[in-house]
Parts: sequence; structure tokens; C-alpha cells
Amino acid sequence: MINFCSNCGGKVHVSVPPMDNLPRHICGDCGQIHYQNPKVIVGTLPVFEGKVLLCQRAIEPRLGYWTLPAGFLENHETAFAGAKRETQEESGAEYNQSQLYRIYDIPRISQIYIMYIAQLTHATLDPGEESLSARLFEESEIPWDSLAFPIMNDILKDFFIDRQKGAFPVAEKVL
Amino acid sequence: MINFCSNCGGKVHVSVPPMDNLPRHICGDCGQIHYQNPKVIVGTLPVFEGKVLLCQRAIEPRLGYWTLPAGFLENHETAFAGAKRETQEESGAEYNQSQLYRIYDIPRISQIYIMYIAQLTHATLDPGEESLSARLFEESEIPWDSLAFPIMNDILKDFFIDRQKGAFPVAEKVL
Repeated sequence: MINFCSNCGGKVHVSVPPMDNLPRHICGDCGQIHYQNPKVIVGTLPVFEGKVLLCQRAIEPRLGYWTLPAGFLENHETAFAGAKRETQEESGAEYNQSQLYRIYDIPRISQIYIMYIAQLTHATLDPGEESLSARLFEESEIPWDSLAFPIMNDILKDFFIDRQKGAFPVAEKVL
Repeated sequence: MINFCSNCGGKVHVSVPPMDNLPRHICGDCGQIHYQNPKVIVGTLPVFEGKVLLCQRAIEPRLGYWTLPAGFLENHETAFAGAKRETQEESGAEYNQSQLYRIYDIPRISQIYIMYIAQLTHATLDPGEESLSARLFEESEIPWDSLAFPIMNDILKDFFIDRQKGAFPVAEKVL
């Protein structure tokens, strides 16, 4: 909730600024407009010798469920650098090559996912404190009913279909 | 600047929270962590009968310079809906079809651009209050030295190259 101005500490009110058409939080003292915008989440679908890496979440939400490594993009970070950082932090996995694969719009929660397919250089994993465990799964072993978020089901399903076809075209999807 | 907590109005300090590795703004009173993240800008490269639509900016920064229609993605909005809204707001142009074309990472200013090629349904333009004017340009007429931002030069250059090749593959680039 935006109750106070982060600039001057004044009280904010909600109204539509000039040359705008949406209500914004505006400071009654210094006049600063506090915009709220969608957040970008970056991550990978890491592959090693045909197996896919999943991490078991050690944090809420969805503690104990399995996820592809992903997290919020930081300021002054490129999307692919953020995806590599999140993959390393959550699983210890390393890679040199990745390709853009999916953009997911999730307007309900104001999130945009940018996801890459990453070819891991080795199978040694070292899950960080955000993961209970990390392991490589054959397609037949994917815990479909224990995935953390609908996006994970969707991208994994698409990946296995595309793998059968032998091509991984970039696509944008709305969830 | 984040000086005060937008939740409770308390003073914030900067330190690294538990299970994190970057300094954040944290409220000394209520403990809320105020993350700052990159912003998403969405827009189009609008085409009509081989000509490209540009808008002349009526607002700073770069007032008077030419730009493709683009603006900040709003909460609860998909990227392609945001691109369509910005195109309509800044130029009055309408389209039914668009295709994802470029993702630009601009880490220096913590922005991600998501840009579409849009096929306009007609040539009638009606620039909004953010534009001094809007018009369709042949390739030979593009005002290369009067474009508002480097991303506009880059995407237009790529578009004309891809048009010669007859295909517009999706790509991600860092500027």
C-alpha cells in the first residue's frame, strides 16, 4: 500500500494527473507521482543430457513445490544476466549458452516472465538457501502435480512438444 | 529517492536483508523492504503500405524529436495490449494484427522494451497530447538524426534490413 510519499513523507491521495487517464498515488506535499508498474521475472529451463533441472522451493509462496529457477530482475541487469544469476543462486547450475524461449504476460498479478532455455555445462548442482533441493528430471519423471506455478506447467509442456518437433521458436503467451 | 516508508511513513535505511545479497531500502519502523525493479516499456513499429509511422514528441525528454509510439506498461495489462494503447494514444493509429519483434535490455537506465511490428488498418492519424504530430515515412524519409532515442535508430535499421530479407525473426538485444 502507498500511504505516504517515499520522497518527503507526506500523505498521498489518489487522483488522475494532467495528461494521464489512470488514477495514481500523488503526494499532497511535494507533488511527486508514485507510479506502480509490472515486475519482470527472469529464469531458465535448464537442460543437461536431455534432462530438465527443477528446484524445490524452500520459501513461500509454494514452499516444497518444484519450479524452474527464476526470480525478479534487478535494476541495471540485463534479462539474460538475471536469468543466469537466478539459475546459479537457486540451483548452483552453470551454463554458457542460452536462448530466448518464452515471454509470459500474467496481467492478473502484473508480472512479465522472460524465460530462456539453457544448456548446462555439467550436472553438478549446489542449491542455494532458496531451494530445498535441485535435481535433473527425465520427461517421464516431471512432478506435474507438484509444480509451483501454472507457468511452469505451461513452459515445460511446450518444451517437450517443441523438442519432439526439433525447434524452439520464441513465443509470447498470456496466462 | 526513497527516504520514507510508503507504508507507515517511517524513515528507511539501506542494508542487505536476510537471504539477499543486494542493499535494499528497509523501513526502520514497520520493517517493509522497498524493492526497486526495472520498468517495462511497450510499443510498436507501425507499418502502412510500406511506410513507417513516427510521432514527434510533445513532451520531455527529447521534445520535438521523432519516436515510435511506446510507453510504460501499466499494472494488469498485457504487453501487446499496452503497445496497442500507446500506439493509439500517441498517434491515433489502429491495428488488428501485431507480431513480437524485439526485446531491448537497457540496463544503464533499468528499462526493458518489448516492441511489436503492427500492420495499420488505415492511414488516418490523430496524434494525442503527447505528440506534436504523427506521420508515415518512406524508408528514404526517416529522420535518422532526429530520432528521440538510440533504440529507435536500432529497431528501424533492423526492420529495413529484415524487410529486404523478407523475414522478421524475434531477437533480444542489449543497448
